[in-house]
Amino acid sequence: MGALAAAMRRSERDTPMRPDPSVTLKDVAAAAGVHPATASRALNPQTRLLVSPGTARRILAVADSLGYRPNAVARSLRTRRSHTVGVLIPDLKNPLFPPIVRGIEDRLAEDGYVALIGNTDSDDERERLVFDLMRARHVDGFVMATAHLRSRLLAEAAAARIPVVLVNRHAEGYGFPAVSVDNERGIALAVAHLAALGHRRIAHIAGPQDVSTGLSRYRGFCTAMAAHGIPVDPALVVRAFAYSIEEGDRCCRELLTAGPGCTAVVAGNDMLAVGCYTALEALGRECPAEISVVGFNDMPFIDKLRPPLTSVSFPHYQVGTEAGRLVLGQIGARNERPEVLYLPPELKVRGSTAPPPQ
Amino acid sequence: MGALAAAMRRSERDTPMRPDPSVTLKDVAAAAGVHPATASRALNPQTRLLVSPGTARRILAVADSLGYRPNAVARSLRTRRSHTVGVLIPDLKNPLFPPIVRGIEDRLAEDGYVALIGNTDSDDERERLVFDLMRARHVDGFVMATAHLRSRLLAEAAAARIPVVLVNRHAEGYGFPAVSVDNERGIALAVAHLAALGHRRIAHIAGPQDVSTGLSRYRGFCTAMAAHGIPVDPALVVRAFAYSIEEGDRCCRELLTAGPGCTAVVAGNDMLAVGCYTALEALGRECPAEISVVGFNDMPFIDKLRPPLTSVSFPHYQVGTEAGRLVLGQIGARNERPEVLYLPPELKVRGSTAPPPQ
Repeated sequence: MGALAAAMRRSERDTPMRPDPSVTLKDVAAAAGVHPATASRALNPQTRLLVSPGTARRILAVADSLGYRPNAVARSLRTRRSHTVGVLIPDLKNPLFPPIVRGIEDRLAEDGYVALIGNTDSDDERERLVFDLMRARHVDGFVMATAHLRSRLLAEAAAARIPVVLVNRHAEGYGFPAVSVDNERGIALAVAHLAALGHRRIAHIAGPQDVSTGLSRYRGFCTAMAAHGIPVDPALVVRAFAYSIEEGDRCCRELLTAGPGCTAVVAGNDMLAVGCYTALEALGRECPAEISVVGFNDMPFIDKLRPPLTSVSFPHYQVGTEAGRLVLGQIGARNERPEVLYLPPELKVRGSTAPPPQ
Repeated sequence: MGALAAAMRRSERDTPMRPDPSVTLKDVAAAAGVHPATASRALNPQTRLLVSPGTARRILAVADSLGYRPNAVARSLRTRRSHTVGVLIPDLKNPLFPPIVRGIEDRLAEDGYVALIGNTDSDDERERLVFDLMRARHVDGFVMATAHLRSRLLAEAAAARIPVVLVNRHAEGYGFPAVSVDNERGIALAVAHLAALGHRRIAHIAGPQDVSTGLSRYRGFCTAMAAHGIPVDPALVVRAFAYSIEEGDRCCRELLTAGPGCTAVVAGNDMLAVGCYTALEALGRECPAEISVVGFNDMPFIDKLRPPLTSVSFPHYQVGTEAGRLVLGQIGARNERPEVLYLPPELKVRGSTAPPPQ
């Protein structure tokens, strides 16, 4: 403890022996073999006791030897903060979100921040409850994957100037930064693939129309069909009330039993596509021999299904790191011009799509 | 607002018109068409402002008409609390955890509590960081799915008398309540199934041996093999360093390329089993024609893989609700005798297991 106390005194009292402003917190963390968040805590006198003495001693010694000088402005800005960001996700059961959350966590960790995750289960009341409780716990900002196009919660958060970044789902008009995939472009890739295989009777299971992904993918479907000269048959568009396997099952049964028949289904997301598999199996219809299915999100595990699902892919982890970067920016200076990013999709062609039956 | 104020005054000043001690918070919530957590907040003067005025008015009116009388002891105990529970999970990417978390959330909501979820990514430093930050945010207790058999964190939490419940993974010796599946029994079901199919060269990919699931399933494997009179060939037991697809892939390749050969693999969990699928495909080996694979957890989506995975199942959601019940009990009275529950497993036989090749 004597060495630790000495190192602490040295670190607090003096500038380093060979100050080098190019040395970053990440450099110190890497050299000490610890997480950047741990290095941040060890270097901050207010949080140092949360790190074990041996680790703190090692980090301080490394910082000293590298000539690390913490950015005083950043430090003073940070000390009034909780260093936590609330991350609201609509449905823990959807494997799309873990890689996005991982990206958020990793980017936040670079600045010594940690994510607290709340599952809203697509329920407005739960969303409000979790949001309010996180605020009461003094999170510094939010990354929300739960946005509805019209949201009282977002309106209030905008009015209260709470740092919020929207991820995956966007909601214009509230002035928040956002990161998502280019949904229209993604659906266009799916429709082009099916059209090239020879499909004309292409159905769409649209996601919920009160969230941006559902609306923009439906619009993208109509636009892409028109671009290929294929009329959209209203009887071949079914709306799901949730992005769930159950809703995909229900909508697919509706298409196959009540409708005029189709040879391909563009599902609003992979959960709905998995529901199609359930319905097809129950009705004894073969995929892709009789019906092709395309999903959206290319979520983990989807390539291991029977058959592997053709799906629109986008860089989940990067969506997360960009959202982390944007929320840190909002926390640092809230009146920046809000940045809205649409990352490019690509189509992963797998075993669930084939030419229509002769 | 006049009616709300009047309802609030009536609710606080008087006992209800027809007090009925059998009416619960859940009854009020159901009658008002809101989440129990919302009803709890509306009925508590200290948290009422977090509920919209119209909703609060409706809930108070319903509570009044039903003769709801809040339990005064429970209320006074509660008011010093944050009504949040930290839930630590080792790996967001493992689909086992969402249904468990959902069970925890639902049971907590009955008592007006909300879960904040932290992903530790199986990293001790991250676990410590998230745990400390949640404590600093004043969570009332923890449900931890991250326990190692020897854990400095758990030792400190026990010494500090922090309400903790262990879920899925158990660690004896710290005196915490715990809920998990009976791992030995689960593996015994898997081995019995393979033995009945005629397998003798049965391999085991053991999970990490510093967590209870890895250790108890390995022990269960040895016991079950002995019960069937099949010697355990040490060359057919490989240890994974993490419950990941990558580790399952690596261990399965090791079994198939370096080992003396096997006709069946009992994987320590489903993530390792999915890794076996990857390895088998890469090596051009057919499952189940050449090699049978059994997993553990019966996680969501696993029945839709190619082939559908035979796996040891247990009631995930109930594991969560029991953990929620136990942590609420710990928060209410910490010196209760710690309850440890082992829920019964069952084997779901699917397409990944078949008799060994002739």
